[in-house]
Amino acid sequence: MIFSLDKAIELLERTPDVLNTMLLGLSADWTSANEGGDTWSPYDVIGHLIHGEQTDWLPRAEIILSESVDKTFRPFDRFAQFEDSKSKSLAQLLDEFADVRSRNLERLRAFNLTDSDLGKKGIHPVFGEVTLSQLLATWAVHDLNHIAQISRVMAKQYKNEVGPWIEYLRILKA
Amino acid sequence: MIFSLDKAIELLERTPDVLNTMLLGLSADWTSANEGGDTWSPYDVIGHLIHGEQTDWLPRAEIILSESVDKTFRPFDRFAQFEDSKSKSLAQLLDEFADVRSRNLERLRAFNLTDSDLGKKGIHPVFGEVTLSQLLATWAVHDLNHIAQISRVMAKQYKNEVGPWIEYLRILKA
Repeated sequence: MIFSLDKAIELLERTPDVLNTMLLGLSADWTSANEGGDTWSPYDVIGHLIHGEQTDWLPRAEIILSESVDKTFRPFDRFAQFEDSKSKSLAQLLDEFADVRSRNLERLRAFNLTDSDLGKKGIHPVFGEVTLSQLLATWAVHDLNHIAQISRVMAKQYKNEVGPWIEYLRILKA
Repeated sequence: MIFSLDKAIELLERTPDVLNTMLLGLSADWTSANEGGDTWSPYDVIGHLIHGEQTDWLPRAEIILSESVDKTFRPFDRFAQFEDSKSKSLAQLLDEFADVRSRNLERLRAFNLTDSDLGKKGIHPVFGEVTLSQLLATWAVHDLNHIAQISRVMAKQYKNEVGPWIEYLRILKA
């Protein structure tokens, strides 16, 4: 499948609803537990997604599309949510994510991107040159990555409860 | 986390909405593609979930709770959906899954299960003795397993589109 802006937006615009449907109103036993150590809970993941909307995807697209000579992205802070989310409920975070995602998709649509725009480049702090279409494809895949992660983290809370069926449940071995 | 019927139902009852939100109205490019070979598309997964509702989870719970001497489960057909789903649209399958899941959860609640019921046993054709609570925990984890699978299958359609970011996307390496 070749990158298409419309098809990426199809995924990006439904992620807040998917996360609401998965998590809103669920017991904290499901939403606050992690996979052990310093892994993330579903609650932590929502904070991470909000931080990405604020500092990563759209701001980086703007750098690529700008007239600026230096198109180097600022490094992304993968741990910002532990500070930013403090004292917020999961419901608040889900709302905040839906808001900021919706505003970012409005901004994305307002770019009226052409095929030539999608080939424009920025400089990733680790990878070097990347294109706008790679950034936007990654934005969508990153959503799916975290939906799968949330499913996995919740599934693992029952790792000891499924008995011998653990053999058939790939998610418990990931 | 110890098995609790209420907390398992929390997950089981929202899965149809999660799948609707993830898939309904999405382009077939996302919903009909698989991971190559004889792997499953999101469309195939919904057929598999319907077949599980019809022949696996609730029917096996009924065997465990029955007065019958032989508590051996019938083997589950992991490929039945390729016949059963024929000529049905994804929207039809999603509706069918929501219906049969809702009816099965009504039946589950009507059992009024006690702690002692949850320890009752059936015979799995491969694993031998399993308890009702293991069956019900597996039912919920199995949902999450397939939500993660659907996310992964869709993500992989953009495997070649994300450029160097593939390094950071665990879902593309699974």
